[in-house]
Amino acid sequence: MRIVLDAMGGDYAPHVPVMGAVQAAKELDVNVLLVGDRELVERELRKFSFPPEKIEVVHAEDSVPMDEQPSKALKRRNSSIHKGLELLKKGEADAFVSAGNTGAVMAISLFTIGRLRGIERPAITTIFPNLKGHTFLLDVGANVDCKPNHLLQFAIMGSAYAKYVLGEENPRIGLLNIGEEEGKGNELTKEAYKLLKEASKKGLNFVGNAEGRDIFSGDFDVVVCDGFVGNVVLKLSESLAKILAKILKEEIEKSWISKIGAITLKPAIKGFKRRIDYAEWGGAPLLGIKAPVIISHGSSNAKAIKNAIRTATQFVKSELNRHIEEEIERYG
Amino acid sequence: MRIVLDAMGGDYAPHVPVMGAVQAAKELDVNVLLVGDRELVERELRKFSFPPEKIEVVHAEDSVPMDEQPSKALKRRNSSIHKGLELLKKGEADAFVSAGNTGAVMAISLFTIGRLRGIERPAITTIFPNLKGHTFLLDVGANVDCKPNHLLQFAIMGSAYAKYVLGEENPRIGLLNIGEEEGKGNELTKEAYKLLKEASKKGLNFVGNAEGRDIFSGDFDVVVCDGFVGNVVLKLSESLAKILAKILKEEIEKSWISKIGAITLKPAIKGFKRRIDYAEWGGAPLLGIKAPVIISHGSSNAKAIKNAIRTATQFVKSELNRHIEEEIERYG
Repeated sequence: MRIVLDAMGGDYAPHVPVMGAVQAAKELDVNVLLVGDRELVERELRKFSFPPEKIEVVHAEDSVPMDEQPSKALKRRNSSIHKGLELLKKGEADAFVSAGNTGAVMAISLFTIGRLRGIERPAITTIFPNLKGHTFLLDVGANVDCKPNHLLQFAIMGSAYAKYVLGEENPRIGLLNIGEEEGKGNELTKEAYKLLKEASKKGLNFVGNAEGRDIFSGDFDVVVCDGFVGNVVLKLSESLAKILAKILKEEIEKSWISKIGAITLKPAIKGFKRRIDYAEWGGAPLLGIKAPVIISHGSSNAKAIKNAIRTATQFVKSELNRHIEEEIERYG
Repeated sequence: MRIVLDAMGGDYAPHVPVMGAVQAAKELDVNVLLVGDRELVERELRKFSFPPEKIEVVHAEDSVPMDEQPSKALKRRNSSIHKGLELLKKGEADAFVSAGNTGAVMAISLFTIGRLRGIERPAITTIFPNLKGHTFLLDVGANVDCKPNHLLQFAIMGSAYAKYVLGEENPRIGLLNIGEEEGKGNELTKEAYKLLKEASKKGLNFVGNAEGRDIFSGDFDVVVCDGFVGNVVLKLSESLAKILAKILKEEIEKSWISKIGAITLKPAIKGFKRRIDYAEWGGAPLLGIKAPVIISHGSSNAKAIKNAIRTATQFVKSELNRHIEEEIERYG
């Protein structure tokens, strides 16, 4: 299997993507096409030993800054994202992975590859750890003004991903809302609830409304919302975990006894970090695009990149997009 | 000053509200009107000593369950919430405090007391601790489908509350959005941004867009959003803090060394809890109602109730509602 990796994407590019590619080449049954500035990428590659036939460098003279507007990024036809996605489009690779600018990857994916049959709006997704496992949340930013049918489609796509790629047997789908009961919500969620309930009669495992607290409760495997709410949830959750840790640290540092006590907690804190660490999940897909595209966190380390490449192979092997097309037809 | 306290509101009523009233009577310059089932309330009161002239019991034979729909609660004309708000309406008290059903208090306040002049939609509010102080967030659930002008009014009301009641000198107002730059957002926030920018030319301290991470960053004193997003944020934040603490506890309990270490951390954890404890803030107001109404958390303890009563007195003394009416006229 051939995976394109954006060598210029992420906060520590090209160093970290190259390291991730090397790890993947060693540990996984994949060939990696590293797309980026050839000179920079090859300089990084020379630091490592790896099976040479499993990594190939494809030159791209430009790259998309992490915070560039998608509309501007679209014009960079020689960026690593654009060139990488073109390889995918032409069938020279099976999937694309980037830790770069998410909005840009979405826009360029739509432009070069296009939407899956039957999908009105592709979605950006994320995976959160919860008390029992993980919650797959979408949309987290692609569609800020949604129609009820978009949320239904997110539910179908998210459920298929949880089932075929994450290996959940019968994923429980929740609609993010402000109360548990049917009839709660704003205009969008009230209407979306009706569509989801209809689809549940045909077999979609829609459980009901999920509240803010349910994103981490473990009672739902897939939670759908519009991209405005999802983006607020994503940024809030990431920051809150950091801020709570910071407040705790400040309090610990107020006394030498607790400072010493804190040392004994290092294994516990390491375990804690592992459980809430996105790197374990290795990226989340753009769903609704006609080919597998995986986004890794901007601050990904090499392990996260390698895991994202593994996720991409699972996306391909599972034939997820065929399943999505079938299920959109069945439930949509 | 006379404050009505809903003796039947909250998860531990009437025990905790009565205890809170007793603390308030002892420590604050207020008279408390405890509204609720006279027999139950007086039985609780007999457990404490307090200046008898400062607490009065007003009988209400009914009470509103914590999870009852506001539309149903409205029909309970003999509930402690309804009778208490009627005392306020008749001018027999200066403010109303409840740890009960927030939606019900909002609905009955609108019905008995009505909106402030110029206010289209009253808002439910909350106060979050942040790294530097606190963030005042509104709306967190009263208005799930908002128009741009509602967000402008929330900004004016929230800013006035932060200034006159919380004592912020020049509160920095943020619009909850999915990016920092002007032009980002959904239809609602794009339009609201324009109105806020206009108002900032007349002196409103609108700083710009706030992202999910900014609710806890301390860069904003007041953050406005529609009640759907605010409600998700509120429930998510409350649950995430609890869940992170639980995961950390599970990890600590895996080894006896870290269990012992954890004992030394007790003061730090206590300090941590105090910093993120809503009880310190003592409730948050319904803004836009023609009289002062303060909501305390359902799981409030006596101290939180007492602090909510203190907040109510500050609301009254500051003549907040007069300021809001003036500022709505100036900026609206």
